[in-house]
Amino acid sequence: MSWQIKPENFGCPLPAADGATVQLAHGGGSRLAAELIEQTLVPAFADPVLSRLEDQAVLESPLGAGERLAFTTDSFVVDPLFFPGGSIGELAINGTINDLAMGGARPLYLSVALIVEEGLELAILRRVIADLGAAAKAAGVRVVTGDTKVVGRGSCDKIFINTSGIGAVPAGLALSAANLQPGDKIIISGTMADHGMAIMSCRQGLSFAEPLTSDTAALHQLTAAIMAAAGMPPAAPAQKANEPEAGQALRAMRDPTRGGVAAVLTEMARASRVGVVIAEETLPVAGPVRGACEILGIDPLFVANEGKLLAVVAPESAGAVLQAMREHPLGRQAAIIGEVVAENPGLVALRTALGPHRIIDLPSGELLPRIC
Amino acid sequence: MSWQIKPENFGCPLPAADGATVQLAHGGGSRLAAELIEQTLVPAFADPVLSRLEDQAVLESPLGAGERLAFTTDSFVVDPLFFPGGSIGELAINGTINDLAMGGARPLYLSVALIVEEGLELAILRRVIADLGAAAKAAGVRVVTGDTKVVGRGSCDKIFINTSGIGAVPAGLALSAANLQPGDKIIISGTMADHGMAIMSCRQGLSFAEPLTSDTAALHQLTAAIMAAAGMPPAAPAQKANEPEAGQALRAMRDPTRGGVAAVLTEMARASRVGVVIAEETLPVAGPVRGACEILGIDPLFVANEGKLLAVVAPESAGAVLQAMREHPLGRQAAIIGEVVAENPGLVALRTALGPHRIIDLPSGELLPRIC
Repeated sequence: MSWQIKPENFGCPLPAADGATVQLAHGGGSRLAAELIEQTLVPAFADPVLSRLEDQAVLESPLGAGERLAFTTDSFVVDPLFFPGGSIGELAINGTINDLAMGGARPLYLSVALIVEEGLELAILRRVIADLGAAAKAAGVRVVTGDTKVVGRGSCDKIFINTSGIGAVPAGLALSAANLQPGDKIIISGTMADHGMAIMSCRQGLSFAEPLTSDTAALHQLTAAIMAAAGMPPAAPAQKANEPEAGQALRAMRDPTRGGVAAVLTEMARASRVGVVIAEETLPVAGPVRGACEILGIDPLFVANEGKLLAVVAPESAGAVLQAMREHPLGRQAAIIGEVVAENPGLVALRTALGPHRIIDLPSGELLPRIC
Repeated sequence: MSWQIKPENFGCPLPAADGATVQLAHGGGSRLAAELIEQTLVPAFADPVLSRLEDQAVLESPLGAGERLAFTTDSFVVDPLFFPGGSIGELAINGTINDLAMGGARPLYLSVALIVEEGLELAILRRVIADLGAAAKAAGVRVVTGDTKVVGRGSCDKIFINTSGIGAVPAGLALSAANLQPGDKIIISGTMADHGMAIMSCRQGLSFAEPLTSDTAALHQLTAAIMAAAGMPPAAPAQKANEPEAGQALRAMRDPTRGGVAAVLTEMARASRVGVVIAEETLPVAGPVRGACEILGIDPLFVANEGKLLAVVAPESAGAVLQAMREHPLGRQAAIIGEVVAENPGLVALRTALGPHRIIDLPSGELLPRIC
């Protein structure tokens, strides 16, 4: 943690600085760094622990009785930094919140670490930081510690952001890709491929009658609604907290980011040694996204979302979970898209409108680098 | 968190890949990424929670009664990746451990997030990961979650690493740069400027009769020894856990990284509204480092360490703390280098051998970028 230097630490006037672009000194222990911290970073996050600027945040224990700690990290290198529907700052906050939420955790605290290229316009850096702050505030999650490094021109591409996150997992809850059982229903919270196609069209300069916009969103309130509808967390904690509970209606949640819905379902099928069958006609894809996918020859099953989730639910709870998702603003287009079967363990099959099944196989290369 | 794809997820042969360098697909949801994760990352850290490859680590609460959570983040962009005495991997583990330890925390869990440049030799990446794993193992700290991104050639310089960390702070302990009181003793755990001068000489191709080596080290066992010698944590927890305790003999600890000893002491003097006087003849500097500083015209007070700390201690406990530090392998050259005074609040003065005091002023720019 290197947001330690305060402006009052310096008694002499600033050296004449460009002011319009990021200097190497913005990342060091200099007065420029202090200005960036005190005038931009600290106000953007407005958190009393962060404002202390110690080497570490010290926080009262956020865990209730029997609760466990969730911990996750993600780096964001998306290109471009700003795109229809979002920006790297929003992605960085929402993405790490979602990684916590998919484990059933209440997201509590985030760290923000910036690696910035010398020469980047300060206005761009300030806008990224403002987006980070606004997204954290909107989600009700605190940014409590941070770091800034500046590297020379050409040593990174504009700005990379790492966010790490801490959350609290309710007692007795044990979601896992390994929990699926035959008969379970697969529910998606909305349309597929929005984020990836927005980035792709933006980067390739494609324009459509209806613009493609990223679906970046923090999903922790949707996951809370899902858990409540599934009767989670159970009244009595499990004996062994990390063992899945017999009868736990909510088996697993995952957000389909890189690799899309296909990657998440394949991973679950393999981890649980079950088959998954999805029905092509039930897969929600927004009209403009479908059009772009057809033009570019891309299957939306493989394209990233940043504000959707897949929930696998025991059949007796699927109706209640679907209903709860549709009542949430981020789940209005939720749909049951398939189910878990005993046949073909480890494989995901697509049942097409024409009848035959097609096995979904993951691409061996990278569809689109720097999507998040 | 994107270490999710397992090799068994893929049923078809790998595409012909270079094999010797990092491909964009190493960071995506592809088979190359799976190989990197399963064959290199998971074995390097050998942690059961990490090995689950869920989106988040879920951990039993690590906090004892009254303990608080410490949380910190740091990105490492050091150039070169390998240098005498250490590497980016060791720095990334030790640096974040030290940020936790300086707050009095027991370091518990780390995250590791890699941003790698396409085209980097895989052998280099594997060595960096091996260093990360070995440093974590040596320190007894668990790496429980991670992420890998690959960006195109020229979009980053070889490899950047973010580590975030979680620790437990004993009840009643409240170390802070704002705690200093006149009469306190300033103790340094060993020689100054080792890391920064090692990087500088390495980068500039300077060679000396005795090589300059980085002092990178994890300091959490040294800080535990210091706290024990200072009678910390106190038997009875403080009423308000974040308020400094009256009579808490150990005021603050900080590791002098970027900006060196001068930056840490200046920050403490300002935060506590006290003066600090250090005695030039007591400042420990290794012979080769002193020689290199003289040749290059650099003041070692401003140069980074990566394995030293400054402790500020009430005078009645200074002898016991100094003794405990000298009995620890990482504190054998510990020395009292100065004291806190009421005069000149916010300023650090150097008392030279010739008698007069010189005020230490921080540089306004960056001494040496990408030192950590």
